[in-house]
Amino acid sequence: MSQTPIQKEVLGANETYSGNFGDKAKLPMPPGRRFAILTCMDARLDPAKYAGLSEGDAHVIRNAGGRASEDAIRSLVISYKLLGTKEFFVIHHRDCGMLLFDNATISDLLSKSLETAVIDENGWRDIGKGPGSPEGAKVDWLAFKDEDKAVLDDVLTIRNHPLIPKFIPIHGYIFDVRTGKLNEVPGASVAGAATV
Amino acid sequence: MSQTPIQKEVLGANETYSGNFGDKAKLPMPPGRRFAILTCMDARLDPAKYAGLSEGDAHVIRNAGGRASEDAIRSLVISYKLLGTKEFFVIHHRDCGMLLFDNATISDLLSKSLETAVIDENGWRDIGKGPGSPEGAKVDWLAFKDEDKAVLDDVLTIRNHPLIPKFIPIHGYIFDVRTGKLNEVPGASVAGAATV
Repeated sequence: MSQTPIQKEVLGANETYSGNFGDKAKLPMPPGRRFAILTCMDARLDPAKYAGLSEGDAHVIRNAGGRASEDAIRSLVISYKLLGTKEFFVIHHRDCGMLLFDNATISDLLSKSLETAVIDENGWRDIGKGPGSPEGAKVDWLAFKDEDKAVLDDVLTIRNHPLIPKFIPIHGYIFDVRTGKLNEVPGASVAGAATV
Repeated sequence: MSQTPIQKEVLGANETYSGNFGDKAKLPMPPGRRFAILTCMDARLDPAKYAGLSEGDAHVIRNAGGRASEDAIRSLVISYKLLGTKEFFVIHHRDCGMLLFDNATISDLLSKSLETAVIDENGWRDIGKGPGSPEGAKVDWLAFKDEDKAVLDDVLTIRNHPLIPKFIPIHGYIFDVRTGKLNEVPGASVAGAATV
């Protein structure tokens, strides 16, 4: 199969990276700095850069919104239980795409077309051709309207989960895409307890 | 609440990053290079470095294993439907922690203790104190035994999902943690079709 232009770019960049791989070849599997970050997939976020991570330092879990979904919990449990992390960060960001829609909006768009929709001052609009799929109505898309509350909700979901031990501190932050700063969400960090 | 040592390190690194944020403050929300990467949370992987991404370029979705879970599909659908990505990469890696256990092993460990377990030549062993939780038995942890097959399975899960359009090419790769190289998994890439 012939390569796409994007594929050629990615492989070209990888050639450069692997050509100077050096001591990274010897890194062990468990994260050296023993923490995990749950954050958004947003293209403007580079967790290694905004939090100062080198290869080998920390687990990074990312999804649409940086939400504490069941799959994020699965990853966090594997992170502390099998690979020894001791501290979690939940880091959302300002201007998140999850603020722009709700379950009804996206399932309606998907029911009409599986091409990209556009948004303007009148809201979302499908410009692609059909067919769409009714399957979008079965999904909870985990959108939100209040950025601070979403971080708080996710920190508490993790804190109260029966498979997450109480001794793990969880820190709730919002990354500002206009300044590059991490700002702590008031009340959204929970200290680790002395026991499980 | 007083800050943990890790929290101080992260905020210190962020101070440096945000101090030189420059034109990144103006980046728009949709990924400029219009693609998304689904990859593992492993600490040794830095997708921005191994694939040559700058801030604003591409969505990055990460979980334990880089698996095409329902939550990863949720993120990929939001990525193409609302934010215009047109191409996906599934990138697992050699020496993945997901090779070291199965559902029975981790649910047994979790039932005994919520502290970190250790592994040696005799397998996994809990050294922490209880109590544990029986909830681990309800989770599919998405571990695997064959790295190439797991990439192929995940590419096909995405390809065959009713909410993913057929015109999106999906590329299956494995990152080699000893060399830094991305190697294509034979047969695990699917070209985009001309139609939805």
